[in-house]
Amino acid sequence: MALRHYTLDFNLSTAVDSASTVPGLLSIFHEQEMTETVHDTNGHGYLATFVGKNGRLVVLRVHSHGLVTIDLQCYEEDNIAELDNLLNALENKLKVILNGSITRIKRLPALVRGAKVDRYWPTADGRLIEYDIDRVVYEEESAYQNIKILHSQQFGNILVLNGDINLAESDLAYTQAIMGSGKENYAGKEVLILGGGDGGILAEVVKQKPKMITMVEIDQKVIDGCKMHMRKTCGNILDSLTGDHYQILVEDCVPVLKKYVQEGRLFDYVINDLTAVPISTEPEEDSTWEFLGLILDLSIKVLHPNGKYFTQGNSVNLTEALNLYEEQLGKLSCAVDFSKEVVCVPSYSELWVFYTIWKK
Amino acid sequence: MALRHYTLDFNLSTAVDSASTVPGLLSIFHEQEMTETVHDTNGHGYLATFVGKNGRLVVLRVHSHGLVTIDLQCYEEDNIAELDNLLNALENKLKVILNGSITRIKRLPALVRGAKVDRYWPTADGRLIEYDIDRVVYEEESAYQNIKILHSQQFGNILVLNGDINLAESDLAYTQAIMGSGKENYAGKEVLILGGGDGGILAEVVKQKPKMITMVEIDQKVIDGCKMHMRKTCGNILDSLTGDHYQILVEDCVPVLKKYVQEGRLFDYVINDLTAVPISTEPEEDSTWEFLGLILDLSIKVLHPNGKYFTQGNSVNLTEALNLYEEQLGKLSCAVDFSKEVVCVPSYSELWVFYTIWKK
Repeated sequence: MALRHYTLDFNLSTAVDSASTVPGLLSIFHEQEMTETVHDTNGHGYLATFVGKNGRLVVLRVHSHGLVTIDLQCYEEDNIAELDNLLNALENKLKVILNGSITRIKRLPALVRGAKVDRYWPTADGRLIEYDIDRVVYEEESAYQNIKILHSQQFGNILVLNGDINLAESDLAYTQAIMGSGKENYAGKEVLILGGGDGGILAEVVKQKPKMITMVEIDQKVIDGCKMHMRKTCGNILDSLTGDHYQILVEDCVPVLKKYVQEGRLFDYVINDLTAVPISTEPEEDSTWEFLGLILDLSIKVLHPNGKYFTQGNSVNLTEALNLYEEQLGKLSCAVDFSKEVVCVPSYSELWVFYTIWKK
Repeated sequence: MALRHYTLDFNLSTAVDSASTVPGLLSIFHEQEMTETVHDTNGHGYLATFVGKNGRLVVLRVHSHGLVTIDLQCYEEDNIAELDNLLNALENKLKVILNGSITRIKRLPALVRGAKVDRYWPTADGRLIEYDIDRVVYEEESAYQNIKILHSQQFGNILVLNGDINLAESDLAYTQAIMGSGKENYAGKEVLILGGGDGGILAEVVKQKPKMITMVEIDQKVIDGCKMHMRKTCGNILDSLTGDHYQILVEDCVPVLKKYVQEGRLFDYVINDLTAVPISTEPEEDSTWEFLGLILDLSIKVLHPNGKYFTQGNSVNLTEALNLYEEQLGKLSCAVDFSKEVVCVPSYSELWVFYTIWKK
């Protein structure tokens, strides 16, 4: 049973005192048979709480600098129409009382707290986003991470790893970006995919008839979930771990990369689709940046001199993280150049940076 | 001075009582010298409020069905690090107390309430979205609407009309979609744009060397704002109301359309870029749907038999509104067919439907 949390805020051009504001509202609370408690704020404005039937709670604050805030909490199965009426009554009354000094009225969509299906997945740059998620279609705790596949009305199923939105079925734009935005020709090429357990990249690259694709994904449970619930992304490519011109190794990519380096194996394309903070079974991942650097260094070592390395970066707003990553690129054992592109991935609610890296 | 509102919620696999939960937290509130009030909820769980220095307020609820919710309100200029520590202390303590029965811990980005610059612009389908908006660059109350241009770090400037996000400088995808997604050739054509005050469509169509573009925008103040602050969208096209192969009429489109109908004027393309709920000076707009129908009917009348009419529809999630619109299409004085396309417009945080309509 979730809690619905409504907010109703009035910004004012002048400070107002509670004596001219509160009495006009009290009749509304009394009609609702709510019990009032006025709190001592030690000079920080008026603060009262009202507790009513069905566990309803209102917090009314008349702040000393021209702001009135109202919180209304109720349970999800309460009479929502009745609560809308209560909020309407408070809004209309305050419009009359504060007439002439209102600069903004803000009534946000209710926060739904503690719901069975969680709809709030903040962006990488820390903003609050409510998704149109209506059910959990898959949830597993693997040895490596928490895996969820959530259904969104508009985006289709969404893969969420450790609370981070990875990819939705609507996000072909992501796959196209991390494959070089349609400017590459994979026909007859050797391709290495790091991660990519949702199968999106594999499904798209295989269409171009490469010589061989090797995909190294650590987590069988990601593959299991996606092959069932992300079919708009992966088609039937994950139904088998090997197929025409591709193989999927369910392994940590670090030892695999090390082996390829030792063998002197080279790839025309390396596509790093590991999660933003990669997971590994290797003990070397002392810090995220060291680990990112290790993967990068190994990847560049297995890259053909004319090859390209593609990876996702981060939210375009996280300029510091992007700068740190670009600094890493200058520290590799082999000199590289890079370019970047900003792409709109439908389910992300933020623009995302993708990198192309190549040997100098 | 805005209010920061933090929430911290614990979902539990079993109901917990306050006697086993609350005492362990009290020392944390006492350390903060907060004054406690326990409220009678009439059987709806434990509810206490704590008022502290600087106007800080905590609401602690142990709901009777396996949910603990904490609200923390403080002022923006309060010591945020101190409040993070308080939340961390509460979270860590609850992790210990509730150990074994926690199914989810949710700590959302703080809601910032009453801030000078409002960052919350819900989607058309009613979801809460926090934008990375850091300043208001233009604000006017015109005779027709409230006009704001807001700066977003990632999307550039965003035009907001009556609280609805219209278009951001990042949103070329919108303009391309409402021009037919690159499948049309405007060279030598007669084009009518309804609305479009941001200049985006005009700027793009003019590049294709049409015979003549007539744009009918009611609101000079939208043009004024966009020509200054949306230049990534409009370039210099709004600097003059007439130019090579285009003219802008700052008028209500309804009488203009009526005049064109009387004159028997025809256009190869009519692009309806009016706001989702159009504004007009005409008295006929009894209901939004009647008004939409009127514009549509007039637009189809001025459409060349082989012409195309483009318009935006609505959020892909608002299936009822989309169905109503499609019903309207069946009621026009001239029989039409239509197709639709779902497009990702970067600043919208929701997929958007665009229509192409033509005479049968």
